[in-house]
Amino acid sequence: MSTDTKAKGGLEDVVAGESAICYLDGERGVLAYEGYDIHDLADADRGASFEEVCFLLWHGRLPTRAELGDLRTQLAAARMLPEPVVRFMRSLPTADGMDALRTLTSILGHYDPENADRTPHANYRKAVRLTGQLAAIVATWGRMAHGGGLVAPDPALGHAANFLYMLTGQRPSALAARAFDVSLVLHADHELNASTFAARVAAATLTDIHSTIVAAIGTLKGPLHGGANADVMRLLLDIGQDAGPDRAEQVVRARLARKDKIPGFGHRVYRTEDPRATHLRRLSKALGQSAGQPQWFAMQERIEALVNAEKKLYANVDFYSASMFHALGIPLDLYTPIFAVSRISGWTAHVLEQYANNRLIRPRTDYIGPKYPQTFLAIDQR
Amino acid sequence: MSTDTKAKGGLEDVVAGESAICYLDGERGVLAYEGYDIHDLADADRGASFEEVCFLLWHGRLPTRAELGDLRTQLAAARMLPEPVVRFMRSLPTADGMDALRTLTSILGHYDPENADRTPHANYRKAVRLTGQLAAIVATWGRMAHGGGLVAPDPALGHAANFLYMLTGQRPSALAARAFDVSLVLHADHELNASTFAARVAAATLTDIHSTIVAAIGTLKGPLHGGANADVMRLLLDIGQDAGPDRAEQVVRARLARKDKIPGFGHRVYRTEDPRATHLRRLSKALGQSAGQPQWFAMQERIEALVNAEKKLYANVDFYSASMFHALGIPLDLYTPIFAVSRISGWTAHVLEQYANNRLIRPRTDYIGPKYPQTFLAIDQR
Repeated sequence: MSTDTKAKGGLEDVVAGESAICYLDGERGVLAYEGYDIHDLADADRGASFEEVCFLLWHGRLPTRAELGDLRTQLAAARMLPEPVVRFMRSLPTADGMDALRTLTSILGHYDPENADRTPHANYRKAVRLTGQLAAIVATWGRMAHGGGLVAPDPALGHAANFLYMLTGQRPSALAARAFDVSLVLHADHELNASTFAARVAAATLTDIHSTIVAAIGTLKGPLHGGANADVMRLLLDIGQDAGPDRAEQVVRARLARKDKIPGFGHRVYRTEDPRATHLRRLSKALGQSAGQPQWFAMQERIEALVNAEKKLYANVDFYSASMFHALGIPLDLYTPIFAVSRISGWTAHVLEQYANNRLIRPRTDYIGPKYPQTFLAIDQR
Repeated sequence: MSTDTKAKGGLEDVVAGESAICYLDGERGVLAYEGYDIHDLADADRGASFEEVCFLLWHGRLPTRAELGDLRTQLAAARMLPEPVVRFMRSLPTADGMDALRTLTSILGHYDPENADRTPHANYRKAVRLTGQLAAIVATWGRMAHGGGLVAPDPALGHAANFLYMLTGQRPSALAARAFDVSLVLHADHELNASTFAARVAAATLTDIHSTIVAAIGTLKGPLHGGANADVMRLLLDIGQDAGPDRAEQVVRARLARKDKIPGFGHRVYRTEDPRATHLRRLSKALGQSAGQPQWFAMQERIEALVNAEKKLYANVDFYSASMFHALGIPLDLYTPIFAVSRISGWTAHVLEQYANNRLIRPRTDYIGPKYPQTFLAIDQR
């Protein structure tokens, strides 16, 4: 076996390929899309909208006003889901939002007008469509799962505001809309995280873009990946909304003593504060106050200080997005699907990049099984 | 960025982790499942059935007669698809078999009685069910796409014979049944091929088993992976059934002169004959003669000699499986789905192994994008 390189477990620190999309420096806590620092892009007042970030990830540069207008029009059109897809959605059991998103995204492939067209232009249009469609699917599924009639998309609203509108039936405040927009910006890409890597492994066989995104959704579903933000909120809800910071500290201290993992802390890449947490902390605080439920943030600040002191672990992207989503009135089972609503932009950017300069991704294993050759006996001799 | 190891493109020769399932020596042309040489397992007379190989991959040892009987019973039960899944199948457009398999496998998750149970025992039962179900889905979908009423599974038949029966409506000859059984044995596992690797990347987030298999199916769909056997048959059909070996050589010689890739040749790992091709060559010849269509094999022998001489490339698993499936009366659009009907055994074995000793699979990229930091200008300043 000509295995030149034995990797650390989980391909840690192994470079799997070149990419121009995401610059990530775990030592210094730097995240940048196409060279633009996440702190600039996520600035609440002067930063970029999610649509601008989509354009940036797909084209490698920020859009002009005209280009942004075109993209907004295309995304708005994509939010009108194909009628059979809505019909399938009604027929599916509503047990799990990620199962539903996985199945419905797979079904979108059957009805995509360019499903069999694998040219770069068609793939780009499919990336745009999927980005519009995933938001509409998650909001519509949320209505079906939690009651309330379906809300048609409003093409006058931006991507973030329209999502909240379709989900809640209410036009969001400017604060809520921009906070959600910033959270979409923050979750848009993160280099070769597991779901993006799964999408690239699929893309490297030159399979269609819907197959790559379905692979990514199924991967994001895992509790070690996209599932963590809901786990954070479950922890907070378990502690209880009237418990207060002292009780929160007590509960988490007991869990640490039992060697339990505390969700929302630590990251494979960052050795310092996750730069996304900086923004989500601020947004969670502002939205919690605005929604009249500041207690979650107060508990989280205490938990963060404790885990930081005891375990030297930093809050990651999942920790404060949990309470922020809660303050926006988003049901717990939509947290991970909403991660996908944002990450679809990065997934598709990576898939398009993989298609453009492709090599099959096919590593090896270190064989530790029964010694070769074993003596085979047919069933009647066993 | 603390990247210790820069891998070759496509993670070639990089060890992504340990595995006890598949021993693969590309230099010597050795393939073994749990230490058992593929030549022993695939022996047409004294070898193992697909069901025995499933047990071997899942348990690391060959079954006793009683264990094999139990597994056969479980697989037969799983071939009775949940009624809503058949209903969804009827509602889907029948354009692409792999799209259908991807969507329907995702839907199976919604209806699995143990969908939310992530314990090892439940995961094992889901692996068995999926193996039975995928065969039933592909055969049933084949009937729907190509006409003919649905054929209920026959629990008295083995997995291979039952598949051909459900697909064609005819009980297969002993030769056809064992040939198809051997082809299932040969396709059952192949270490970290792209679809299996995608399944393990997904599994390493601890997502559910249906999500991992849906990722694998979408990956297998790619023309650089599972799609190749259908491409081989398309090449042969293009040349024409009455063309003969001389004409076949002429066509392929012209394609080689144009630097076209000839499907069914070459492999990332093997530097010698793919040991699976040895068996499929023999089976293709026998079945072609038995079906009164020896011309495909005659053309392929000539093409193989030419590509071997001109390009130093060996026939891989896809080359002779194409004509073998054709001789079995299997429609072209089922070739890749049938690959999945077999590989589900290896996929699930690898996923169960990943769950049992897990670490998140999360590599890095070599960043080649715009220099960090780029100066951000808000949209109204651009």
